[in-house]
Amino acid sequence: MTDYKQWNGFKGTKWREEIDTRSFIQDNYTPYDGDESFLAGPTEATDKLWGRLQELQKEERSKGGVLDMDTHIVSGITSHEPGYIDSELKNLEKVVGLQTDKPLKRAFMPFGGIKMAEEACKTYGYTPDPMLHKIFTEYHKTHNQGVFDAYTPEMRAVRKNKIVTGLPDTYGRGRIVGDYRRIALYGIDRLVEKKQEDLDNCGNGKMRDDVIRQREEIAMQIRALKEMKEMALSYGFDISEPATNAKEACQWLYFGYLAAIKTQNGAAMSVGRVSTFLDIYIQRDLENGTITETEAQELIDHMVMKFRMVKFARIPSYNELFSGDPVWATLSVAGKGIDGRHMVTKNDFRFLHTLENMGPSPEPNLTVLYSKNLPDGFKRYAAAISVRTSSIQYENDEVMRPVWGDDYAICCCVSATQTGKEMQFFGARANLAKCLLYAINGGIDAKTRAQVGPKFVPITSEYLDYDEVMQKYDAMMSWLASVYVHTLNLIHYMHDKYNYEAAEMALIDTDVRRTFATGIAGFSHVVDSLSAIKYAKVRTIRDESGMVVDFETTGDFPRYGNDDDRADEIAVWLLKTFLHKIKQCHTYRDSEATTSILTITSNVVYGKATASLPDGRKAGEPLAPGANPSYGAEQNGLLASLNSVAKLPYEWALDGISNTQTINPDALGHDENERVTNLVNVLDGYFTKGAHHLNVNVFGKEKLIDAMEHPEKEEYANFTIRVSGYAVKFIDLSREQQLDVIARTCHHEM
Amino acid sequence: MTDYKQWNGFKGTKWREEIDTRSFIQDNYTPYDGDESFLAGPTEATDKLWGRLQELQKEERSKGGVLDMDTHIVSGITSHEPGYIDSELKNLEKVVGLQTDKPLKRAFMPFGGIKMAEEACKTYGYTPDPMLHKIFTEYHKTHNQGVFDAYTPEMRAVRKNKIVTGLPDTYGRGRIVGDYRRIALYGIDRLVEKKQEDLDNCGNGKMRDDVIRQREEIAMQIRALKEMKEMALSYGFDISEPATNAKEACQWLYFGYLAAIKTQNGAAMSVGRVSTFLDIYIQRDLENGTITETEAQELIDHMVMKFRMVKFARIPSYNELFSGDPVWATLSVAGKGIDGRHMVTKNDFRFLHTLENMGPSPEPNLTVLYSKNLPDGFKRYAAAISVRTSSIQYENDEVMRPVWGDDYAICCCVSATQTGKEMQFFGARANLAKCLLYAINGGIDAKTRAQVGPKFVPITSEYLDYDEVMQKYDAMMSWLASVYVHTLNLIHYMHDKYNYEAAEMALIDTDVRRTFATGIAGFSHVVDSLSAIKYAKVRTIRDESGMVVDFETTGDFPRYGNDDDRADEIAVWLLKTFLHKIKQCHTYRDSEATTSILTITSNVVYGKATASLPDGRKAGEPLAPGANPSYGAEQNGLLASLNSVAKLPYEWALDGISNTQTINPDALGHDENERVTNLVNVLDGYFTKGAHHLNVNVFGKEKLIDAMEHPEKEEYANFTIRVSGYAVKFIDLSREQQLDVIARTCHHEM
Repeated sequence: MTDYKQWNGFKGTKWREEIDTRSFIQDNYTPYDGDESFLAGPTEATDKLWGRLQELQKEERSKGGVLDMDTHIVSGITSHEPGYIDSELKNLEKVVGLQTDKPLKRAFMPFGGIKMAEEACKTYGYTPDPMLHKIFTEYHKTHNQGVFDAYTPEMRAVRKNKIVTGLPDTYGRGRIVGDYRRIALYGIDRLVEKKQEDLDNCGNGKMRDDVIRQREEIAMQIRALKEMKEMALSYGFDISEPATNAKEACQWLYFGYLAAIKTQNGAAMSVGRVSTFLDIYIQRDLENGTITETEAQELIDHMVMKFRMVKFARIPSYNELFSGDPVWATLSVAGKGIDGRHMVTKNDFRFLHTLENMGPSPEPNLTVLYSKNLPDGFKRYAAAISVRTSSIQYENDEVMRPVWGDDYAICCCVSATQTGKEMQFFGARANLAKCLLYAINGGIDAKTRAQVGPKFVPITSEYLDYDEVMQKYDAMMSWLASVYVHTLNLIHYMHDKYNYEAAEMALIDTDVRRTFATGIAGFSHVVDSLSAIKYAKVRTIRDESGMVVDFETTGDFPRYGNDDDRADEIAVWLLKTFLHKIKQCHTYRDSEATTSILTITSNVVYGKATASLPDGRKAGEPLAPGANPSYGAEQNGLLASLNSVAKLPYEWALDGISNTQTINPDALGHDENERVTNLVNVLDGYFTKGAHHLNVNVFGKEKLIDAMEHPEKEEYANFTIRVSGYAVKFIDLSREQQLDVIARTCHHEM
Repeated sequence: MTDYKQWNGFKGTKWREEIDTRSFIQDNYTPYDGDESFLAGPTEATDKLWGRLQELQKEERSKGGVLDMDTHIVSGITSHEPGYIDSELKNLEKVVGLQTDKPLKRAFMPFGGIKMAEEACKTYGYTPDPMLHKIFTEYHKTHNQGVFDAYTPEMRAVRKNKIVTGLPDTYGRGRIVGDYRRIALYGIDRLVEKKQEDLDNCGNGKMRDDVIRQREEIAMQIRALKEMKEMALSYGFDISEPATNAKEACQWLYFGYLAAIKTQNGAAMSVGRVSTFLDIYIQRDLENGTITETEAQELIDHMVMKFRMVKFARIPSYNELFSGDPVWATLSVAGKGIDGRHMVTKNDFRFLHTLENMGPSPEPNLTVLYSKNLPDGFKRYAAAISVRTSSIQYENDEVMRPVWGDDYAICCCVSATQTGKEMQFFGARANLAKCLLYAINGGIDAKTRAQVGPKFVPITSEYLDYDEVMQKYDAMMSWLASVYVHTLNLIHYMHDKYNYEAAEMALIDTDVRRTFATGIAGFSHVVDSLSAIKYAKVRTIRDESGMVVDFETTGDFPRYGNDDDRADEIAVWLLKTFLHKIKQCHTYRDSEATTSILTITSNVVYGKATASLPDGRKAGEPLAPGANPSYGAEQNGLLASLNSVAKLPYEWALDGISNTQTINPDALGHDENERVTNLVNVLDGYFTKGAHHLNVNVFGKEKLIDAMEHPEKEEYANFTIRVSGYAVKFIDLSREQQLDVIARTCHHEM
């Protein structure tokens, strides 16, 4: 094969012969063991562009959350003319490319669902072209219509009664991370050549449905690659061949990501693990003397600015679930290689440094792949950024690497995916707390009074008997797991049919690993409720129809979040049991079922739909987010809480175990140095125990309350906090969610 | 269930409880044993409307074959305003409804393939709206694009080299006959109710791909039914409930058919077996005194006029295959019930009588389901119509009924399908004559010099050895059958995906039987060639590269078409061997593979692509059509020829065995009475031997030659002849095809 001149100076051969970005990285990256002292501040161009963007963001907020919308153009890779942050400043932009022709203008994306696309427009006062309605109802069916055509009444019922929630049946499923680095390393032509080879080798001429589907998908991928080239050309770049230098590498890579966000509006549109890869180009340029550190930082700043600008047109019900307009442009840094070397490069510092050069920001969702064995300089810098900005999250590279290797990336809030080798059929969560209530009430939903689950014999006793509850809960969970998996099967079938991610899949191996990511909501409440039934006395309170509508719990019982094995063992049992039941079901395209314990901000909506529980949580109150212990349950400080969560085996929740903690700065230390030291210790301890994830917030409740009351204060404009699985500007949350965040445990002691 | 008042006077219960048109027919029809003397002539309205339509047809011909075309509207069930033959005469139309808003105006149907739809427009000087191009390339993929995305190079090669031909990969596959009678008998609401019930019962909540696909299809069917109601309403009819009388029954039924032809442009869009069904309504009205025979005939005449008007926008390459603009609006009459009663009604006479009231016409493709045991009066009337118009065909009810029951209909030229219970995955033909040459030349195409088949060892001897040829032919046929079936698998997968026949399938049972109809071309030439190799001496003539390009055959050999078992046994062997090989392959949706020996007029095109053969046929000459003996092979008169064809077992060619024969009127008898008697005897004899099909032409070559030279003569304006599997206006054939028809054997003796 061609040995591109653009590869001069790079080492290794395997990646030259095959599409193999990982080998390229391993053969060429330069681990960095130093501290942050080399970093450069923002350039004038960065300040100007970021200043302009902040004005636009302000304008966006003042217009109710949306600055501008497309109403005539259907978003596609080549649908728009080139766009710039500011056409007068466009020469300052080191990395170009917008989703539409104007900054923050939201694209019209009807393939997931025309109703959703139209409603999004109408919500913000825009009127979509009626011709588009005709096209996407009469001529082209959307994913949403396909799903609703095939839903069973049972599926509609579990959806309506919110025992299964957040199903991606009206928008893109997201979570598919193309290996955007491939464009920089290989150029489009080589990628097309490889996909053409894959097409030639797909099936042996015997046309069964799976072969036909696959062949068609590859053909669509090839088309998408060619369109990327066309789109890049409209910006004046020929991406047929590999990138020549760091600037081009950033640009080529970004064009790949841009193609993804022009064609898909998935809840999560992650960037992947690009930092170490790009560092190789920067390092070469630095060594060649063709770039300075200031210019390198500028490149990363400008690229990150683009990730900060990603926006989709959403509807109110979506915003309720995922508050603050997140897109999960998750970008993973650090981690270790399977050869034992850490993978921290200067570029990982540069990405974290964007939070200083341009201030805190929820996007990109910066994620540190953590290991105790990362170099101290980096660990301390990351902790310092947490202490200063509360904008980053940590995930345990030591538990993920054995499963996913050393080139995985986070594809949503906390879920790992092998870059370029895996895709996820993602969807939603089963509310196991509601399921427990269904078990008690014979399948009737205490909120809606509908018979949603199977009409099993309800519990009729006054006091709940642990064995009886467990037997009934087991049966009800079997039902729920089955209807949940089959609903997802249907959704993903239709997504492939009507809204296939050709651009992202074009940058993933054809012989792709498919995982099937389910999720659990209400986790801690089930654990504590079962513990209450087992260790205390739970009396049922019934309405006139005999349905259990509340509980009276007397006596003490162990709660999850206190490092008490009695409760924590129930937690492990619950996780394993649920996953077993999920795995019993056929999954679409024979994908590998996994599960997660993460709920994003949707815990508030889920809680609204959930009646009172034996653990004392009252009807309508928010559920605890993700794998977090319930509010008020944690009585023994941060470390005990972390210990409980760390007991959940990652192998049983490969899609992730999300934990969000807030600690008062004073509890962490007297000054930044002490705080940083203590935070590093906390992270080392927590992750050494095998925990998966931690969102770290360092602030006190007073600040939250003040920000809620005075959102107009300049200091709160970019005040970012970590919620379950992402970061968000606090002032962008609804008041309801702000109150929920405030209600969460803020640890005042370690 | 509701016992509709519209059903007053009808007998039976089964069809009231279930959707079961057949039971309704069996319970209620009135067999008619008399002759044609009851028939009424055309009414003034019929004459006026037909006169107007003939003017329009003349205008159409003078404009090069197309009167008008849609260039802005995408055809759908509800896409057009109501249309009439002549808006000033619209009150005369007893059965209303046009494909578009104007008579003979061709609809724009892009779902099969946008390129085809656009090319059709451009061919006739029309410019399609560029927006439609954008929609059907960027937003909605078409069937054609899907197929070509997934084709393998091998599939493209067999297609390009025309060893597999006539693949429905650019237009609707056709051949699906909705049970349009259901609308008349049950009304739309009951049909929707039933489909909703089917949806409820589809799958048990476990979503595997097949269940999801099926559920979505049912949902689409329900939508199509609702649209039919809306479309009917635009014409002023509420078809929610059953038809009240004969006029409504014709109208309701026609609306169903109209929905089909508004949404699909399949090569064959057959009407089905509607005659006996409608007779029940007419008979009730006649008995109630609410209709006269003249009015009854007028209804049928007007309905048939609509079937004569069905037109699609086609491209030149399509017209080459299927000359004369046929649509196979096949309408089947007569036949027997499985209880032994014949099913001839007065209405069967009325349908044949339309060929007298309005003159001969190729459409609807009138097909008599023949049995020796049909009443004499009907047999003689049908034969008389053949003698007078050469416009009808005969198919053997005695061989079809055991396989398909007594409610099947012809769905294309000659293929039977169970009405409302079966659909066909149809496609094209394998050219077995070319396959023989591939066997001799090691997979190289003698015409194009391309290596198309597998590179098997070619025959290198000067004289062909029968055993060697047979061994090599067997292997090559295995290859051909496999690539053929898998090409069809792909085509039908994509058809279901991008161009699903919701309107037709809505009128077919959800639990449908799926057949997979393959076909053979070049049949007689292979038989005679193998016979020549076996019984005579065949020397190969090679070009400088060593490839066999011609043959020199010395000595005599038996030929198919002379009632000589030596040749006819080879014919049976060929048919059985091919079907075995087809059945070895996986077929899409586990459909039942069948085959046919029918070629329509495509024998001319197929012949062009086929080099010289050992039977003496020279390169480029037309192949014999269907199962017909080769031109000049038949040396022993009509009966001997028929006997050869009759030896082919129908059970091995369930998709049909087409035979077209022309007999000189003088050979048939001295006057019409004698001709009719003799033709009935011929049919009785032929079909008693187990033959499947016969196209009967009664005219001499002189008439054909005169019509070719003087198409302007008034007498030839509607001069209709039977070609392989359909009828065509002779003057609408290309000169090449006219010459081919003239070259065919015209029997001068019985």
